[in-house]
Amino acid sequence: MTLTPEQKAEIEEARTETRPTRRVISEGMENRLYTAHEVLDHGLVRVIDYMGDDNAITQAARVSYGKGTKHVTNDEGLIRYLMRHWHSTPFEMCEVKFHVKLPVFVARQWIRHRTANVNEYSARYSILDREFYIPAPEHLAAQSTVNNQGRGELLQGEEAQRVLDILRDDATRAYDHYEDMLSQDGQKGLARELARMNLPANVYTQWYWKVDLHNLFHFLRLRADTHAQYEIRTYAEVMCDIVKDWVPLAYAAFEDYRMGGVNLSGKGVEVLKRRLAGEVVTQENSGMSKGEWREFEGVWG
Amino acid sequence: MTLTPEQKAEIEEARTETRPTRRVISEGMENRLYTAHEVLDHGLVRVIDYMGDDNAITQAARVSYGKGTKHVTNDEGLIRYLMRHWHSTPFEMCEVKFHVKLPVFVARQWIRHRTANVNEYSARYSILDREFYIPAPEHLAAQSTVNNQGRGELLQGEEAQRVLDILRDDATRAYDHYEDMLSQDGQKGLARELARMNLPANVYTQWYWKVDLHNLFHFLRLRADTHAQYEIRTYAEVMCDIVKDWVPLAYAAFEDYRMGGVNLSGKGVEVLKRRLAGEVVTQENSGMSKGEWREFEGVWG
Amino acid sequence: MTLTPEQKAEIEEARTETRPTRRVISEGMENRLYTAHEVLDHGLVRVIDYMGDDNAITQAARVSYGKGTKHVTNDEGLIRYLMRHWHSTPFEMCEVKFHVKLPVFVARQWIRHRTANVNEYSARYSILDREFYIPAPEHLAAQSTVNNQGRGELLQGEEAQRVLDILRDDATRAYDHYEDMLSQDGQKGLARELARMNLPANVYTQWYWKVDLHNLFHFLRLRADTHAQYEIRTYAEVMCDIVKDWVPLAYAAFEDYRMGGVNLSGKGVEVLKRRLAGEVVTQENSGMSKGEWREFEGVWG
Amino acid sequence: MTLTPEQKAEIEEARTETRPTRRVISEGMENRLYTAHEVLDHGLVRVIDYMGDDNAITQAARVSYGKGTKHVTNDEGLIRYLMRHWHSTPFEMCEVKFHVKLPVFVARQWIRHRTANVNEYSARYSILDREFYIPAPEHLAAQSTVNNQGRGELLQGEEAQRVLDILRDDATRAYDHYEDMLSQDGQKGLARELARMNLPANVYTQWYWKVDLHNLFHFLRLRADTHAQYEIRTYAEVMCDIVKDWVPLAYAAFEDYRMGGVNLSGKGVEVLKRRLAGEVVTQENSGMSKGEWREFEGVWG
Repeated sequence: MTLTPEQKAEIEEARTETRPTRRVISEGMENRLYTAHEVLDHGLVRVIDYMGDDNAITQAARVSYGKGTKHVTNDEGLIRYLMRHWHSTPFEMCEVKFHVKLPVFVARQWIRHRTANVNEYSARYSILDREFYIPAPEHLAAQSTVNNQGRGELLQGEEAQRVLDILRDDATRAYDHYEDMLSQDGQKGLARELARMNLPANVYTQWYWKVDLHNLFHFLRLRADTHAQYEIRTYAEVMCDIVKDWVPLAYAAFEDYRMGGVNLSGKGVEVLKRRLAGEVVTQENSGMSKGEWREFEGVWG
Repeated sequence: MTLTPEQKAEIEEARTETRPTRRVISEGMENRLYTAHEVLDHGLVRVIDYMGDDNAITQAARVSYGKGTKHVTNDEGLIRYLMRHWHSTPFEMCEVKFHVKLPVFVARQWIRHRTANVNEYSARYSILDREFYIPAPEHLAAQSTVNNQGRGELLQGEEAQRVLDILRDDATRAYDHYEDMLSQDGQKGLARELARMNLPANVYTQWYWKVDLHNLFHFLRLRADTHAQYEIRTYAEVMCDIVKDWVPLAYAAFEDYRMGGVNLSGKGVEVLKRRLAGEVVTQENSGMSKGEWREFEGVWG
Repeated sequence: MTLTPEQKAEIEEARTETRPTRRVISEGMENRLYTAHEVLDHGLVRVIDYMGDDNAITQAARVSYGKGTKHVTNDEGLIRYLMRHWHSTPFEMCEVKFHVKLPVFVARQWIRHRTANVNEYSARYSILDREFYIPAPEHLAAQSTVNNQGRGELLQGEEAQRVLDILRDDATRAYDHYEDMLSQDGQKGLARELARMNLPANVYTQWYWKVDLHNLFHFLRLRADTHAQYEIRTYAEVMCDIVKDWVPLAYAAFEDYRMGGVNLSGKGVEVLKRRLAGEVVTQENSGMSKGEWREFEGVWG
Repeated sequence: MTLTPEQKAEIEEARTETRPTRRVISEGMENRLYTAHEVLDHGLVRVIDYMGDDNAITQAARVSYGKGTKHVTNDEGLIRYLMRHWHSTPFEMCEVKFHVKLPVFVARQWIRHRTANVNEYSARYSILDREFYIPAPEHLAAQSTVNNQGRGELLQGEEAQRVLDILRDDATRAYDHYEDMLSQDGQKGLARELARMNLPANVYTQWYWKVDLHNLFHFLRLRADTHAQYEIRTYAEVMCDIVKDWVPLAYAAFEDYRMGGVNLSGKGVEVLKRRLAGEVVTQENSGMSKGEWREFEGVWG
């Protein structure tokens, strides 16, 4: 990551100051605040602000449950109950704001999650920095031969080197030309909103991204999943660690019911019941297609 | 308002404690936190939590503007610029959570604003309190004779008294019967989810309502407007005062450009230009319908 | 249901006319169009318009999959794949608009689904009809003794009769008084926006409700579920039948993966694997709470 | 635009067939259906489906207004009233689905409008075509010297030529390298999800985009505005023409109240009133900043 000494000093200073507040705080999240967590070669995730903690979830739920809740004696039980039964609104009562630096092709996947607030650095208005994502050798994978949207084996030797050379050279040339076109040295200089079109999708951008906990969990379930593209998954994993410190009870319920859970179809339920009754079930008599059966066996053997 | 001594003590206690935080704070909002602001006869508005301040708006905007912003030298100018040009995303970077107690017919108008998070006290799960909104005499208005969805003169004397008696008696009887049907004393007791259907629309409900500043401004513009029904407007007005303390610069811009502003149609612009050029324009040669002209004259004479 | 002869004739006439269109059509949905499906004692569901069919889902998905899709040979397989992997955006490409007449307490649950478009009959502007929901005897249930938000046994004999009498009498009186307060006969007449507050939550309202297929499925999964309150569930069930005719392949996938499916937690997966391996697992050594275990046994015995 | 003969034939065929429907139709929109409207050098906008017409707007509004509407005698007046008073929900009752082909940097602006449904061609799954946006000479503008996010004079002669050469050469080289990296000829071939990062922001992508009329108007107000970047504005203008054919009354109201209208601040209203009263107002005594005054004079002289 390439923070300037000035930026580092600014972050450090922001972390030093504290002020008294009447609001609830999360100790785990206070420790995370402002710290620039490195992701990929030049990316970062920083928590800029947050609202609420585990208790804010049950407090909101208890308005909706009112006096009847006395026998749900503890927050953990109630949080697990809410997660299990898809009561999503209490989780919406927590909010978090991140500053994220990320390659444009990752940003394009990320923005598909619509229920969030975003302010992105504008390349119409400003000039982007000379920073590009170049995969580390251990992530330079070939196209999967079984999955149209996945990766297979790692590239090796000359092929790997050639790819890295191409990515580096093309990014460098594109950025040189971007500067040439913008330059007002002896010429008018192309409009920024036009010049940016020459930059490749691995150039880094930045944004402020604010989201509630329910929608963040939805994002993390899809993007920290093993089927997500590695480059966005690595952001999601850093955010999982942060959320775990922020709302430990809610995160534990999320891990059990969402990340570690399995959705069974009606057909899947039937097959498992037949198996539990001792029957040997095959794809042919399962009622599932080959693809479904392969996924089913992936979990249940 | 009817807070129990226990509830008052709980609120007072919450206001006493402070904790250190690294987050930005708004001094004006810290003073508002938890205080139960009275609305109508039994209603309330309380701030439960908030995120951000005026500076959080420009900080987010400056990510989207980056290095180019150095000549927009101050926060106030930038906030006014953003409001004037409908750049809504920086205002979405502030968030607030309210606890609101309100009559059901007000809640039904309120909930039409969809971009917010809500947890409502559940009458399926719990038993509602015996609290109903009865208008004060100065709000007991007749149907408007010119506006199908507005109020006209105040009711007087016997008619006013009769209306108040009806509202009180019917609410009392409905609640007595609600309790009778629920009672498990010598009978099974009707399910709560069914018994509630006997309660009238002036019964009070409660919810936690969380919203970002942009969407809150949109809510306030419509609901603090003179055309809004008085009962919801009085909630909006209390919230305007709170927002003014929270983000004074943003609120001032909102007041100038939205609450105090006027939307002119293309036809309206033409008429004003003709007037500025000295022409006397009438409805007949304005191109406007009678209704539009009446509204136009309401502003411009 | 209480449609006037004029309303019936109007609906019949709308069903008679056809016009040529270049758009895709769904034969099953054309047969449903405009028909007033009766729900509860005075409620209705009518399809007013729709966009798309099963093929519109795969057509949209194939833009996102482009040239790579040639080996997904049929629509059914692709639709099942999309549903199984939570690819929700292709299902958003179908849209439907309903006219619904429903009691206010049902409307209040319904409106919590925010991702939809709504126009409700305004009791600020107009006068509501004298129509109230009174449960049929077979739905007049006592409060559940095990579930705070559920129903138990049916009320019998005198208690049932007394409840029905209360609901009918209070609704009648409330409506009589509503008319009395509104009346401009020898008096000013209370504003409509105030008079409506006397009406109970079983009064019928009406709205146009428009939603995309993905969000409709989400609504149906929660509201056609056995845990939903009967009164909203009966609307959801009628809508399930309509959707089945509209997009039969998507509905079949929805039935298998959502309505008939089961979400297992990580702990639930472990328990099933231990059972499949021949172990006898009890609540005590399952890692689950008593409540979770009861729900788990409800499915798996 | 570069449609293959096969694609042209497919579109032509889709336009030829008609089917009977009971739904409302818009004649103007039927004529537009499927036609590929050319935008920029390789882009297109096609209507794939639509729901509703002008009458669907007033029909929905009349549910919300019910019996009280008899004196709003015509659809045009009611539509203008709804637009003038920001009653947005009736306009949400119309829906349209577009197929759009557009450069990635335009897609990135477009997607910021969150209240829409999108399915984009996936470069993780498929291989993008060799098509890049190269500005026509009459759009090759220099950076504005007065507006940080705008264009100034046109580039001329050698500078213009050099920019066009750079854009063409870099795009060609980037695409050649994209193919080289993907190639499985004598090598493994880089994963598609990685190779795409070498492509510049002027490469074309495609999506299905579905939106309701209210949100489409919001999009058009911002993107057909003279301050919008030319490349997205040209798409918005084509869509304005289409919407005009689809819902002529709603579009006329939109033109008058939104596109041709002006938002005055409270300060602006005061200044105009002083001018109407004969006073000469200057920036100094207007209460406005220099920037605001410049914008104000831009409209009012």
